[in-house]
Amino acid sequence: MIITLATDIGWEYAAEMKGVIYSINPRAKIVDVSHDIMPQNIMQGAFVIYSITPYFKKAIHIAVVDPGVGTERKAIAIKCKDTWFVGPDNGIFYPAAARLGIQKAYQLSVGKASPVFHGRDVFAPAAALLSLNKKPKWKEIGVDEIKKLDFGKAERRGSKVIARVLFIDRFGNIITNADLKAEEMEVKIKDRQKKIRRVKSYGYAEKGEIVAVESSGGFLEIAMREGNAASFFNAKEGDIIEIFF
Amino acid sequence: MIITLATDIGWEYAAEMKGVIYSINPRAKIVDVSHDIMPQNIMQGAFVIYSITPYFKKAIHIAVVDPGVGTERKAIAIKCKDTWFVGPDNGIFYPAAARLGIQKAYQLSVGKASPVFHGRDVFAPAAALLSLNKKPKWKEIGVDEIKKLDFGKAERRGSKVIARVLFIDRFGNIITNADLKAEEMEVKIKDRQKKIRRVKSYGYAEKGEIVAVESSGGFLEIAMREGNAASFFNAKEGDIIEIFF
Amino acid sequence: MIITLATDIGWEYAAEMKGVIYSINPRAKIVDVSHDIMPQNIMQGAFVIYSITPYFKKAIHIAVVDPGVGTERKAIAIKCKDTWFVGPDNGIFYPAAARLGIQKAYQLSVGKASPVFHGRDVFAPAAALLSLNKKPKWKEIGVDEIKKLDFGKAERRGSKVIARVLFIDRFGNIITNADLKAEEMEVKIKDRQKKIRRVKSYGYAEKGEIVAVESSGGFLEIAMREGNAASFFNAKEGDIIEIFF
Repeated sequence: MIITLATDIGWEYAAEMKGVIYSINPRAKIVDVSHDIMPQNIMQGAFVIYSITPYFKKAIHIAVVDPGVGTERKAIAIKCKDTWFVGPDNGIFYPAAARLGIQKAYQLSVGKASPVFHGRDVFAPAAALLSLNKKPKWKEIGVDEIKKLDFGKAERRGSKVIARVLFIDRFGNIITNADLKAEEMEVKIKDRQKKIRRVKSYGYAEKGEIVAVESSGGFLEIAMREGNAASFFNAKEGDIIEIFF
Repeated sequence: MIITLATDIGWEYAAEMKGVIYSINPRAKIVDVSHDIMPQNIMQGAFVIYSITPYFKKAIHIAVVDPGVGTERKAIAIKCKDTWFVGPDNGIFYPAAARLGIQKAYQLSVGKASPVFHGRDVFAPAAALLSLNKKPKWKEIGVDEIKKLDFGKAERRGSKVIARVLFIDRFGNIITNADLKAEEMEVKIKDRQKKIRRVKSYGYAEKGEIVAVESSGGFLEIAMREGNAASFFNAKEGDIIEIFF
Repeated sequence: MIITLATDIGWEYAAEMKGVIYSINPRAKIVDVSHDIMPQNIMQGAFVIYSITPYFKKAIHIAVVDPGVGTERKAIAIKCKDTWFVGPDNGIFYPAAARLGIQKAYQLSVGKASPVFHGRDVFAPAAALLSLNKKPKWKEIGVDEIKKLDFGKAERRGSKVIARVLFIDRFGNIITNADLKAEEMEVKIKDRQKKIRRVKSYGYAEKGEIVAVESSGGFLEIAMREGNAASFFNAKEGDIIEIFF
């Protein structure tokens, strides 16, 4: 059974989680999704988890982006058919889980866990038990009780779309929450504005040209060929992006 | 059998080690603990290995933080009940191994290894053989012959503790070698000083507040909520930290 | 069967590829070679793949350094005895494959793949099928049709060698395409020049001394003990390096 890890805690702490998982289920298959999600950036974590889930038929996804660790925020497990999500109740799973259809939700018992590292002491053992078809210590809660979070909808006003930057990848490509299909558009982020065209893929742009493409996840993406569009626009995740078309 | 890798060599060189391990034992389970330990920082490597070992029931831990590679420093294997350590004899395993109880020590034969990469040519094959319950080319040496290293003890002088920075994690949290339980304290690193309180977990601090928590490894940790305590104090691993309580 | 991944796409996108691979072959063994190859740096990717292949007896190597994704550049699979290469036809596999001896080459069908992410939609499923001894949708092409790329040969002119920087590792060690065995040499990169001696390994240099060693891959390597030779010379991959001996 596959257990994925999407965390902001770095590789060293994540290794402690892996030790816990393998001690309970030596046959688990662990996938490191990321250990350098921007510290405490729940929205970025939610986007990453939303992006990867379609490609795992059956998996247990652990997230550790957890500013509320050790407080009264719940530790939860969410069941969606063949997929489990295990982590903090801060909305990080919501977009991915809502798309799959949430069937059940559980509050995990925290017991004597370190109040600064539930990833290791609560989520990892719970996921390992689930991977063995065993039940962690939990109680069922209502599906409506889990914390919600969404990426927002890009808003259309006449020939303008007001969207949001969901994710900036390591190329500096800007993934937005818009799904505009226009062939030409003017993009504005903060005080920089640029007229761009849509192309099928990066290779159809000129070197240094900024273009729109359809991202691999189906969103409108702004990219600079062999350059960094996010640097050009000084764009950050969460920024408003205005698109005139 | 689990083989963990804690190195400062980067992912690309580590992949060569994985090829060697899988060629000898295709069923090995490799855990990447870290490949970006600070170059040549044996103390950081020792702290990382010390931190993870309690969570692996049975494993072979390889370390490659090895400024003395190719010189007369020994290549060693250390046995502690169900745990093996394989790597350079520079003290990197000592805190973890001493805690577990060292049973045997061996000097590995170096043979025709590349003098710049024993990780690939000596440690990886030795660990892979051990994972198959086979013996590498080695000779037993005295347990007292292996190089020692310790984190030092925080020193208490009246209402002052003189401690040391053991590790700075990716949040900028400062893990120290103190285990002070005071509720209030004044912390001084270099020329910055700050009065802080102890909280159970980060989430109980105000945004930007610096607090003391018990680290997930049981040490006194100085953290800034949604900020970077290490940047605030300009703290580096190895720094002296004075705590007045 | 081992499937390695050498990419410039970052961990998050790579996780989508892993989901695809495990969905097709749950028993695949995935090795993360690197996910932070310098964006679009085909030469760096080629060097990394060339360096690791000798240590994998039998493997399928996927590369995703793919500035031409979605254009008319071919997606290919190359067979070399027990080794497969699967990725873009941009030369990234050529040095490794030519050394092993290329037996067959195939053009992969792209079908309805996302034009911005063939790694996930073309290479990952093709590699997963090959790991099950199944055939992806492809057509055989001539071995001579695949794109070539080489590291160049260091050129000898009397007592001077004109070489090239192939790779800079995370220590700042400069790996060149020369194989000079001289005991003393003068090294010039751009406008910095330095007389250095050859040592067997880093530990035989003085702290801060720049020396020549034989790299773990058999090339001439310029290193600074406990320092960064690449910073000293302001060296970049691809730079010309002149060596007077």
